[in-house]
Amino acid sequence: MGHSKITSSASADRQLRLDGWGFVGEGFAASSELLAWLTERLGRPQPFGSFDPAGAEAPAPATLPDLGCATSIESLDRLAHARGRGFPDLVRLRSGTVPRLPDAVARPVDDRELEAVLTAGNREGLRIIPWGGGTSVTGGVNPPTDAAPVVTVDLAGFSGLEHLDEVSGLATLGAGTTGPALEAALQAKGWTLGHFPQSWELSTLGGWIATRSAGQESLGMGRIEDLVAGLDLTAPAGRLSLPALPASAAGPDLRQLVLGSEGRFGVITRAALRVRPLADCQRVEAVLVPDWASGVAASRALVQGDVPLQLLRLSDASETQVAMTVGLGRSRFAPLVRGWLKLRGIGDQACLMLLGASGSHRHAETTLEAARTVTRPHGTVWLGAGPGRHWLADRFRHPYLRDGLFDVGFGTETLETAVPWSGVDRLYRTVGEALSQPSGDGEAPTPVLCHLSHPYRDGVSLYFTFFFRCPQDPDLAVARWAEMKRRANDAIQAAGGTLSHHHGIGAWHAPWLPQETGDDGWRVLRQVAKELDPHGILNPHVLLDRTDRLEE
Amino acid sequence: MGHSKITSSASADRQLRLDGWGFVGEGFAASSELLAWLTERLGRPQPFGSFDPAGAEAPAPATLPDLGCATSIESLDRLAHARGRGFPDLVRLRSGTVPRLPDAVARPVDDRELEAVLTAGNREGLRIIPWGGGTSVTGGVNPPTDAAPVVTVDLAGFSGLEHLDEVSGLATLGAGTTGPALEAALQAKGWTLGHFPQSWELSTLGGWIATRSAGQESLGMGRIEDLVAGLDLTAPAGRLSLPALPASAAGPDLRQLVLGSEGRFGVITRAALRVRPLADCQRVEAVLVPDWASGVAASRALVQGDVPLQLLRLSDASETQVAMTVGLGRSRFAPLVRGWLKLRGIGDQACLMLLGASGSHRHAETTLEAARTVTRPHGTVWLGAGPGRHWLADRFRHPYLRDGLFDVGFGTETLETAVPWSGVDRLYRTVGEALSQPSGDGEAPTPVLCHLSHPYRDGVSLYFTFFFRCPQDPDLAVARWAEMKRRANDAIQAAGGTLSHHHGIGAWHAPWLPQETGDDGWRVLRQVAKELDPHGILNPHVLLDRTDRLEE
Repeated sequence: MGHSKITSSASADRQLRLDGWGFVGEGFAASSELLAWLTERLGRPQPFGSFDPAGAEAPAPATLPDLGCATSIESLDRLAHARGRGFPDLVRLRSGTVPRLPDAVARPVDDRELEAVLTAGNREGLRIIPWGGGTSVTGGVNPPTDAAPVVTVDLAGFSGLEHLDEVSGLATLGAGTTGPALEAALQAKGWTLGHFPQSWELSTLGGWIATRSAGQESLGMGRIEDLVAGLDLTAPAGRLSLPALPASAAGPDLRQLVLGSEGRFGVITRAALRVRPLADCQRVEAVLVPDWASGVAASRALVQGDVPLQLLRLSDASETQVAMTVGLGRSRFAPLVRGWLKLRGIGDQACLMLLGASGSHRHAETTLEAARTVTRPHGTVWLGAGPGRHWLADRFRHPYLRDGLFDVGFGTETLETAVPWSGVDRLYRTVGEALSQPSGDGEAPTPVLCHLSHPYRDGVSLYFTFFFRCPQDPDLAVARWAEMKRRANDAIQAAGGTLSHHHGIGAWHAPWLPQETGDDGWRVLRQVAKELDPHGILNPHVLLDRTDRLEE
Repeated sequence: MGHSKITSSASADRQLRLDGWGFVGEGFAASSELLAWLTERLGRPQPFGSFDPAGAEAPAPATLPDLGCATSIESLDRLAHARGRGFPDLVRLRSGTVPRLPDAVARPVDDRELEAVLTAGNREGLRIIPWGGGTSVTGGVNPPTDAAPVVTVDLAGFSGLEHLDEVSGLATLGAGTTGPALEAALQAKGWTLGHFPQSWELSTLGGWIATRSAGQESLGMGRIEDLVAGLDLTAPAGRLSLPALPASAAGPDLRQLVLGSEGRFGVITRAALRVRPLADCQRVEAVLVPDWASGVAASRALVQGDVPLQLLRLSDASETQVAMTVGLGRSRFAPLVRGWLKLRGIGDQACLMLLGASGSHRHAETTLEAARTVTRPHGTVWLGAGPGRHWLADRFRHPYLRDGLFDVGFGTETLETAVPWSGVDRLYRTVGEALSQPSGDGEAPTPVLCHLSHPYRDGVSLYFTFFFRCPQDPDLAVARWAEMKRRANDAIQAAGGTLSHHHGIGAWHAPWLPQETGDDGWRVLRQVAKELDPHGILNPHVLLDRTDRLEE
């Protein structure tokens, strides 16, 4: 069927889809309501094709030396490791126009084998790309078109729970462990990491660390950088083995230098993580607020008021409309919600919040009661737990929706940033305006949705989703997307936001990075890379390469 | 009177003491009970002299170029900037045997003047030492004996509140702002940073950042690295200006590279800090537990049980005895406590805990009630708020005790580390044994006290205090102390602890740092230093110099 069987401990019985998100047989179809909503705004789309890679001839791989570990040069395996899962990746995969495959997929299973691959890379001038779950949406795992022979190193061999210190709540796991495998291993012993990025079903611990991932429950559990107590990194010229420590004043924290290093400084092989006993209960309540300003104020009041929530999300009015259409559209709560909206006459401006609490039943109850008190002055109406259960059930399935929209010809992409609370209004307006420009000549304005999530006392992340008619020509599709990304990156930086709150830099954001770090900060990072990877074999095209690769 | 008048915004009306802790006229005398306790264990000491610097001739300073800012070569000013406040600093200052003074004290007042100093340093090969409050206990501000002309840069000119963003709770302050000046500026507007290291009355924001400081209320407020949202650094070859962001996935966090850089990468000039509204109430309750093991278990249960305490300290049995003698000895609660101890027959093993809660009155009440419930299985007896009030009143005065002990001839020093909970027992035993060896031939075993503080879910800091008879010969006094420090550093590393939880590395811990970072991690830090300070003018003798300078 054109799909390579790729095994991992987490998906031993499921086939990964080669040209879309996730697993074969899974999906999240666009509802007729959503398609109508989009068509009304953008016009009727042209279906975007799907390519059968089984029938295509892959270019012959470069001749490679012995890498000292299991190595595959099989075409479908190379294709399965050719791209991440950003919009242009799906365009290239679906249209059979991937410009560059890795020449081989290496599968080391221990430190010694990994070192052998890096030694060969140093000696032969190979380009090495570490691969965890392959879910990058920043071009972080894509072989660049201008590269020397490329070896993608699949880290699935570095998988599983190695040690659990139940006194300290510290679990050491291999970097190739996927989200489900990690939680299964921990939960079997009564523990959880509680790190749930949207990519959780596919992505790996090493990828989370390399990209400074934030899970959907980061408000309660912290970001991955809060959860990593120690880690090991194998570099082309050196090793870091940083022990698990609760805190330290012994110089700058080298863990924090590895976090976010995106395979540029070395390959993360294992980490000691701060884990917690499994909670008795998890509750997510849905709340409506009259408008965006009230919702932002309520969110800020909750987090600055120390209400110990596990999760907070606030959709803007557009995303609330779509959530009603897509998510609630098929829920028995939809009529209730719609009725309420009509009754209050605030339909277009209403914003949906999700507030989650975890822990003992009593703690969850007390927390939500505190949230009720704190948000009352902001005009909240509480809808109960139904929509929250719905969201929890679907939260890892939302990425499938993109493939369903592709089938009918709509493109969709997401991007995200973070900013202090005082900058939320300006950033929301600036980025919204930049994205809402028509995606091309003759196109309608681009519908843009936004939500706040991952709130902090001093600021919050903003997550934008936008839709456009996808041209059938893959180069044109990618070019239009690239133009929107450039506008968005410029707008984010003009409004004081960070280039990324949790997706990372990869290849696609890299030209904008010096603006955020400053030239001297960028130079420092490049120098660290030189020290650990003097020949520039590990991912030199990501993070610290200013080349615009949005259209590769 | 032999004291230089050193002004800062925090101490405009108080003179700093030149040969001891803090301000002239302040003190914390050793009680007769404490002196009896020490004499019983160590024997009668010989008083240690005090030197009048006003009468001494300072060596002539090296001829220096124009530094582009106000510069002093006055002897007392140079002496006032010659040493930190570790044990050997006090020995050298009190005995008039400081081996090296800075040749000048420069006082830039803005970025331009600071850059001029660094430019002169690059051009003339000067050794530049940034100076905040001068409270280093790791040799972090001492001119090395083997150095080129030394200019100490006093950053008092970079002082004060520059900006307050009340929506985001972000305050931007100059790095030279002292603790009292910082809190005064914030509290005048209803805000607080809540960062209270023991050195708070003297130390500065820049020093806290440079050394990864932790305040006594770090359990509730976080460490300085949790409180810094953005910062500026001026280096001999570059500048970092990292904006305030709540979180980011835009590559490795450069803020975390500056935190703990100890003036090696550049001079921190300002920072944007996460501040909070002033709490309505602060309560500290004293609790006794039957023994150390119960206390450790209770502490771990509190922090892993998410009881939102602001502060937790657990003294071991020895420190509890001394606290009773010194602290409670003069309190009206002492008879009550002693009576209780006798009644229970657990006098020698009882351990004192202090548990603090802040916020609204109701939140503090609820938190302490939760603490009562969580600790009950560990045999706690609650003593009320009296001892806590006592501790709060004296907490910044404890360092004065060291000078009082010096006067009669006892030396005392403190050191600290952190370790996962599973390593607490081993570390407590290993370091305790290493320190309790006699300080010299013919000396009795060294009394060692310890407390846990700064607990985290996965571990905790251990803080050791030890006492010895101070030889009257300053070189011998320093040599004995150095031998104890070497044994302690070795023991900490053998037991898996970090070299420092909040004092930093400075010059004195630097030879042990590669063991903690690994050689490759150490090499990375050195490379960062080279990139920002290619001529090695800024503090090259601290953090990344393996020379043993304990006896300088």
